[in-house]
Amino acid sequence: MLTTAEASQSVQSHMPLFDSEDIPVDKAAGRVLQQSVRAERDQPPFDRVTMDGIAIDHGAFAAGRRTFAIQGTQHAGEPAQTLTAESNCIEIMTGAVRPEGADCIVPVERIRIEGTQATIEDDYAATQHQFVHPQGSDYRKDDKVLNAGIVVSPLEIAIIASCGLTEVRVCRQPVVRVISTGDELVPSGSPVAPHQVRLSNGPAIAAMLARHGYADTAQEHLLDEPELLRRRLGGHLDAADVLILSGGVSMGKADFVPGVLRELGVEVVFHKISQRPGLPMWFGIGPDKQAVFALPGNPVSTLVCCRQYVLPALDYASGLASAAIETAALAEDVVFEPQLTCFLPVRIEESGDARIGAVPVPTNTSGDFRSLSGTDGYVELERDASRFAAGTIVPLHRW
Amino acid sequence: MLTTAEASQSVQSHMPLFDSEDIPVDKAAGRVLQQSVRAERDQPPFDRVTMDGIAIDHGAFAAGRRTFAIQGTQHAGEPAQTLTAESNCIEIMTGAVRPEGADCIVPVERIRIEGTQATIEDDYAATQHQFVHPQGSDYRKDDKVLNAGIVVSPLEIAIIASCGLTEVRVCRQPVVRVISTGDELVPSGSPVAPHQVRLSNGPAIAAMLARHGYADTAQEHLLDEPELLRRRLGGHLDAADVLILSGGVSMGKADFVPGVLRELGVEVVFHKISQRPGLPMWFGIGPDKQAVFALPGNPVSTLVCCRQYVLPALDYASGLASAAIETAALAEDVVFEPQLTCFLPVRIEESGDARIGAVPVPTNTSGDFRSLSGTDGYVELERDASRFAAGTIVPLHRW
Repeated sequence: MLTTAEASQSVQSHMPLFDSEDIPVDKAAGRVLQQSVRAERDQPPFDRVTMDGIAIDHGAFAAGRRTFAIQGTQHAGEPAQTLTAESNCIEIMTGAVRPEGADCIVPVERIRIEGTQATIEDDYAATQHQFVHPQGSDYRKDDKVLNAGIVVSPLEIAIIASCGLTEVRVCRQPVVRVISTGDELVPSGSPVAPHQVRLSNGPAIAAMLARHGYADTAQEHLLDEPELLRRRLGGHLDAADVLILSGGVSMGKADFVPGVLRELGVEVVFHKISQRPGLPMWFGIGPDKQAVFALPGNPVSTLVCCRQYVLPALDYASGLASAAIETAALAEDVVFEPQLTCFLPVRIEESGDARIGAVPVPTNTSGDFRSLSGTDGYVELERDASRFAAGTIVPLHRW
Repeated sequence: MLTTAEASQSVQSHMPLFDSEDIPVDKAAGRVLQQSVRAERDQPPFDRVTMDGIAIDHGAFAAGRRTFAIQGTQHAGEPAQTLTAESNCIEIMTGAVRPEGADCIVPVERIRIEGTQATIEDDYAATQHQFVHPQGSDYRKDDKVLNAGIVVSPLEIAIIASCGLTEVRVCRQPVVRVISTGDELVPSGSPVAPHQVRLSNGPAIAAMLARHGYADTAQEHLLDEPELLRRRLGGHLDAADVLILSGGVSMGKADFVPGVLRELGVEVVFHKISQRPGLPMWFGIGPDKQAVFALPGNPVSTLVCCRQYVLPALDYASGLASAAIETAALAEDVVFEPQLTCFLPVRIEESGDARIGAVPVPTNTSGDFRSLSGTDGYVELERDASRFAAGTIVPLHRW
């Protein structure tokens, strides 16, 4: 049976790389950038005044002048005026362009204005270039300000907009189909018999993908009927980049899914991973490199496998650089005897000491997903140990 | 001047509480739940078989019987069959209902099937109730499984769907208007003169709000013209719960915004907070309790103030219980002389020891927002100190 690391590596090596598309910048948040972005202009684009006050020629101040004739006023957003005499000054506002001929700003708090004259306080020592943020001192026109391979956050939206771009190249949204199989499943809104089960995995998978930026996730519920499965799964394979099946991979039930997938040209890459929950997970590749994930049907397994294997695969195929793995300290002793990697749901404890404490939230069974509410993710307990003392440092995967 | 804590408290005490609405469950992810959710049925809803195998009467096994006649097969999703003789067994699949009259499951790996007979291995010790997950052992019908006041995550989507709900009561999305003011601003796509600045704050604010679940955020750019401001801001006050203004609150420029807001019945609650960046932040309340945030116009200030004041206010007004504040350890010495709270952008360092290390990412100026790309949030350095040694524990606010 594959280890969890081998399974992750196997999925990644089989994933296609999704292509890219140009979209409006205001739709780009959450998407993976697939171009670098270069500065449209120097930043600041001009010598930028950083104080309200008066703009003067510092040479005149150095020569002893303290009173200046106010030649005019210049606001932010106005073209630079020109100081026409060294005995003049220009009233100037934060964000304005440095006037031509001026090389020093004296703050409004240190001057006195009488009529058309501004006088600098006796004890104020103006220095040349003061309160001017020089053009290009943050970065230069054409400097690379963003690299490809990052998720566009609100911070990058600001940067991209500041570069004057209206469109940006991002990874195309993969088309994902989420298919719940099983005669026993009944969607909300329909009467449910005692021996039936509510359909809940499909909506949870779609919500998890959407939260990570993958929103094109149509869902369908299919009964365990070979002809129906063949027709519908065939259609989904034609339409989608990724199929996520929930249920239908255990070996005991009336389970036609693996056979139907084989007939449709989907080759199994692996079946079963040395882990709990989620041991029966199945992964295959379709004739056009469609990735097909069949997740075990119980809700805790489904959510863990989606987070642990499907999301990283979508990120990889979208060109996202992989992030460092977070770690947490177990807040309690944990014993887990089976020789399987254990994915244990946890709540993160804020202890005020910059340390991530992970409080185990055991589920009564892998069907007891009510306990998951309020958890922040799960920790990964290595396969070849069974006793994990409080304080043990373990990988943490947030939902 | 208000402290940062006083400003947060003041905003919260003036916020209205948004009302609620019923929406389809598949639209509820990311919204704030405003009802409790009770179990539709016991969980498991029946005595649930947890192994593929045969279902037998344990009394017969205890009396010495090892070979049983296969009476039938029962899959998941089928009504319970009834064991018609203690010498019989029923082939049974994981997830199926425990058959009537059977009280023990023997795993398929420990039996041998010949024709219509199943024989248990000699050395197998079956125990009563084994591999049956009893009805109601996770929770009971009508037990409260979710409380109001949480954000609906994919985990809660699964829980809500399992309770058979098709609609759920959540907080209504507040109507937010994001208004960028300033003659100097030029949107992407239009030519920009050397003395002008690209409009970037509005798109960044809208993206930040959307990422936190607030998607109803129309944007507008307004020039510094009193009549235009009066007409447009009046319309936005009529339409919106929250106005976010970017720019227009410094005192030096051609700034008609505070006067126009006053004429429109917006009362100032505070102006200026003892912080950097973002000192000139302005907050007011409209005649119908519209919250009006005027954020300082430079990009770093805008983003910090939006994260620090606007988002918590929206969360509060949406009924979200406030979360514990994360902490981080400074990775380097920091000196910050002004007697102001310092919000310092940081990158979180994964050091593999469960500790959150915060690496300061100083911005060259508060206009140098390129540096923000790749930061995870900012730390809060208290006002009444100026030297912060590496290792100091400080509050961390993730973007």
